[in-house]
Amino acid sequence: MDSKRVFDSPEARIASSYDASRQQHLPDVVVKPVNTKEISEVLKLAYANAIPVYTRGAASSLTGSAVPVKGGIVLDTSLMNRIIEINPTNLTATVEPGVVVADFQAEVERQNLFYPPDPASAEFCTIGGNLATGAGGLRCIKYGTTRDYVLGLEVVLADGRIINTGKGTLKRVSGYDLTRLMVGSEGTLGVFTKIYLKLIPKPRAQSTIAAFFADSEQAIRFSIDLLSKRILPRAMEYMDALSLKSVAKYKPELQVPPDAQAMLLIELDGAPNDVDEQTGETRKLLHDAGPIMSKRAISEKEAEYLWSIRKSISAALFSITAQKVSEDICVPRSAISDILKVISQIEASSGIPIATFGHLGDGNFHVNFLISSKEHLPAATLAAQAGENKLAEALDRLFTRTIELGGTLSGEHGIGLTKAKYFPLEWGLGEMAIFKQIKQLFDPKNILNPGKIFE
Amino acid sequence: MDSKRVFDSPEARIASSYDASRQQHLPDVVVKPVNTKEISEVLKLAYANAIPVYTRGAASSLTGSAVPVKGGIVLDTSLMNRIIEINPTNLTATVEPGVVVADFQAEVERQNLFYPPDPASAEFCTIGGNLATGAGGLRCIKYGTTRDYVLGLEVVLADGRIINTGKGTLKRVSGYDLTRLMVGSEGTLGVFTKIYLKLIPKPRAQSTIAAFFADSEQAIRFSIDLLSKRILPRAMEYMDALSLKSVAKYKPELQVPPDAQAMLLIELDGAPNDVDEQTGETRKLLHDAGPIMSKRAISEKEAEYLWSIRKSISAALFSITAQKVSEDICVPRSAISDILKVISQIEASSGIPIATFGHLGDGNFHVNFLISSKEHLPAATLAAQAGENKLAEALDRLFTRTIELGGTLSGEHGIGLTKAKYFPLEWGLGEMAIFKQIKQLFDPKNILNPGKIFE
Repeated sequence: MDSKRVFDSPEARIASSYDASRQQHLPDVVVKPVNTKEISEVLKLAYANAIPVYTRGAASSLTGSAVPVKGGIVLDTSLMNRIIEINPTNLTATVEPGVVVADFQAEVERQNLFYPPDPASAEFCTIGGNLATGAGGLRCIKYGTTRDYVLGLEVVLADGRIINTGKGTLKRVSGYDLTRLMVGSEGTLGVFTKIYLKLIPKPRAQSTIAAFFADSEQAIRFSIDLLSKRILPRAMEYMDALSLKSVAKYKPELQVPPDAQAMLLIELDGAPNDVDEQTGETRKLLHDAGPIMSKRAISEKEAEYLWSIRKSISAALFSITAQKVSEDICVPRSAISDILKVISQIEASSGIPIATFGHLGDGNFHVNFLISSKEHLPAATLAAQAGENKLAEALDRLFTRTIELGGTLSGEHGIGLTKAKYFPLEWGLGEMAIFKQIKQLFDPKNILNPGKIFE
Repeated sequence: MDSKRVFDSPEARIASSYDASRQQHLPDVVVKPVNTKEISEVLKLAYANAIPVYTRGAASSLTGSAVPVKGGIVLDTSLMNRIIEINPTNLTATVEPGVVVADFQAEVERQNLFYPPDPASAEFCTIGGNLATGAGGLRCIKYGTTRDYVLGLEVVLADGRIINTGKGTLKRVSGYDLTRLMVGSEGTLGVFTKIYLKLIPKPRAQSTIAAFFADSEQAIRFSIDLLSKRILPRAMEYMDALSLKSVAKYKPELQVPPDAQAMLLIELDGAPNDVDEQTGETRKLLHDAGPIMSKRAISEKEAEYLWSIRKSISAALFSITAQKVSEDICVPRSAISDILKVISQIEASSGIPIATFGHLGDGNFHVNFLISSKEHLPAATLAAQAGENKLAEALDRLFTRTIELGGTLSGEHGIGLTKAKYFPLEWGLGEMAIFKQIKQLFDPKNILNPGKIFE
C-alpha cells in the first residue's frame, strides 16, 4: 500500500467519519487502495492487529452502514472505479467496486444495453456500496434488485485471503452460493474487489404517467388493479400528502395540485408498440380510478418534470424539518393499505409528522419521521417536545406492525447501525444464531464493519 | 411421525434407492412426512443418533444428488404437495416442497400468472428438488433460474430446529441471505418445508421458430447476432448433429432434415404485437444466416411439434446407446464456439460419441457421452472397448477446458455424487475451505445428504 494513499490528517479522517445517516465517528486512518493486492495487504495487517476496517464507497447509506463507529481503518474504494469490461455478446460487465452507478448505467446504455438497478442516489453512490446494502431503487417491481444482477465476485476476506465466488456465467450451481451471501452483507463478511454483473438489452421505449389522487386508498386500489391486468410497470412510485405538500412549498414551479393526498408515478417500458398499448390500458384504468388529475409525459423533458417531483422529496422535507429519520420497511403488497393505516395512527399518537413515499409496486416505503419540524403541521403537535422517547416508541410500533404484517425492517437500505436494535424483532433465536455463526466464520476477529447489523 | 408412513420393506427401500443418474444405494428406511413438525421430529432423531438423511423429491436428479449413498433415512417429501397459496395481488405463491413443477405452473397460469422456471423434467420433478439443485430449464435466458424466484423459505435444520429465511416480500435486506444460500445446496444444509415464490404476469403471446443449419457455427453466429439486436428470446435451444440424427431415427415422423448439423429452437414472448414484431425481425435475421430450413409455428400444435424434437432427444439417445453420461457445463456466451470445438476434439480423441444439446442462450450445454453406443457412429471407434479410463480422461478434459474458458461444472444440475471429484477443479483452497465451514456450521454431524458435493 503506497503511503501516498494513506491519510491520517484530521481533515481526511473527518471527511470519512460520516455517512448520509448523519451519524459520525472518527476513524484513525483512511486508505485509498487501487487494486486487490493492496486491499489484501491492508486486511492482513488489520487482521494481525485486530484493527476495525470500514469499507467505504460513496457513504450514501441512510443507516450508518459506512460510519467507522469503532475507529480503525476506513478503506475507501473510490479510486477503484474502473469499468473493466462491458461484453455485449455475454450481456455481462465486470467492474471495480468504486464505479459510480450512474456512470456505469450511462456507459452500458451507450452500448444499447441496460443495467436495471436504479437507487435514488445513483448519481453518486457506488456499485460496491449497492452490493453491500443489496440496493433496490425505482425499477425493482419489474427488474428485481441489485442481487439479481450479480453473477460473481472477487472478495478479499477478513484475513486478506482472496476468493472468487463465481465469474461471468449466467448460471452456476457448484457449491454454495457465496455470491448472494455476500450481497446485502453490509461490509461485514468481506471486501468486494471485482464484480461480475448481468446486463439485459436496453428497452426500446418507455412512457411516464403521473396521477394525483384526493384519497390515498384510491391510489393503492388502482395500483393493485393495474397489476391484475397483467401490466407490470418498471416503476410504480407513491408519494403521500405530506411529501407532496413539502414539494409544493419547496418547488412551487412544479405545480403540485394543492388538494392532492397522494401521487403515483408509473413508468412502463418495452417495445414501442407494446408500451403504447400498455400506456393506453393504464390510462383507461386510471380514468376509471378517478384521480384529481393525470398526465402522460409526451416528451423526455415532461417525463423529467414528473420525476422531479419524486426526486425533490428528500430535499423538500429538509426544508420543513431540520432532522428526519428515514425508514425503509417492505411489506407484501396485500398489506399496503394496512401499513399505511398503521403509519397514520403512529403519526396521530406520536405527534411526529410522517412523510411516506417510495416503491409502492414492491410494498417498499420510505417512512420519514420529521423529528424537528420547523412548522406546525396538521395532525402534529410539536414533535421536538416529544423527544427521543416518542420517536423510539413510534419506530418500535412501525417495525413491530411491519413484521406482524409479514414484512421486513428493510427493503433496500439494510440494517446498519440505526436498525441494529430492531434486528431481533424480525428474526428468531434460530436465525440469529446462524447469522452470528456466519459472521464468526468469515470474520472471526470481528474486524469488518464492527458495530453493524448485530448490537 | 405416524408409523404408517415409515417404510422398511425391501420394495420401499429399493424404490428410493435410485435417482435419474442410475446410481443406486439402499436406504435403511423411507419416511413420508406430511408436515414440518414430522420432518423436525425425524431430524431430531437422526441428529441424536448421527443417521444420514437423504431428502427426496421426484429423484429426477442426473448427478446422484438423491441417492442415499450411506444408507440411513430417505425423507420423501412427495406427500407434502400442497399449493398453500397463490396470491395474485402480491404476485407470490407459497408451496410445499413436494409440489410437481408442471402442476404448479398450470395452476399459476390458470390465474393468468406465470412461474418462469421450466426444467425439462417439469412434468414430474418437484419444486423442492428444483430449489435443491438450483434448477434452470428452458426459459433462463430471459427469466433467470429458480434462484431468482425464491423469496423465502421455512427450513428444518440438521438438528430439527425450524427457521424462516424470509417470507413473501419482494425485497429484503435484513441479515444474511440465507434463502439463496439454501438454493442450490443440494440437500446438504437443511430441508425445505415451505417455499415462498415470486410470480410474474403471464406473457400474453408467444411464438416459436425453428431453424436447421448445415453448419453449427452458423447457428452460433446467428444466436449472437440476434441478441445484439436487443432481442431476448425466452428460450434459445441448440441441438447438435448427433442429437438430431438420433431423433430422426427414433421418431422419423418428425422429419428432421437429414443433412442438418445443428438446430435452433427459439421462443419469443410478450405482448402480441411485440411478439409479432420480434418474430419478424428474428426471421429476417435468420434468412440472412442461411439455414437449410426454418419454420415459424403457426399454431400451438405446430409449436408443440417443433418442441417435440427437442424433448425427444434424451429418449432418442437411449435408443442408440445403452448408457450415457450427461454433463451440464455452462460457459460465457463468448466461449460457446470454443467449447463446442473442445467437445469435437474430445469426441475424436476419445472415440466416445458425444451428443450436445441445451440452452445455447445461457451458454449451458448438456454434453452426453454415449458410453455404450449400440452402433458404429461417425467419428467414433467402439467406445465400449475404450472403457472407463477413456471416459474419465474425456470428462477431465471437458471440465478443465470449461473452467479455463471461464465456465462452471454445472449450470443447473448441481455437483451431487457424479461430479464431486471434479469439484476442486472449479474452486481454489480458499473457496473450498469456506464451503466446508458452511457445511460444518449447518450440519456439524454431516447427516444431511452425506457423500455429495464434497468427496
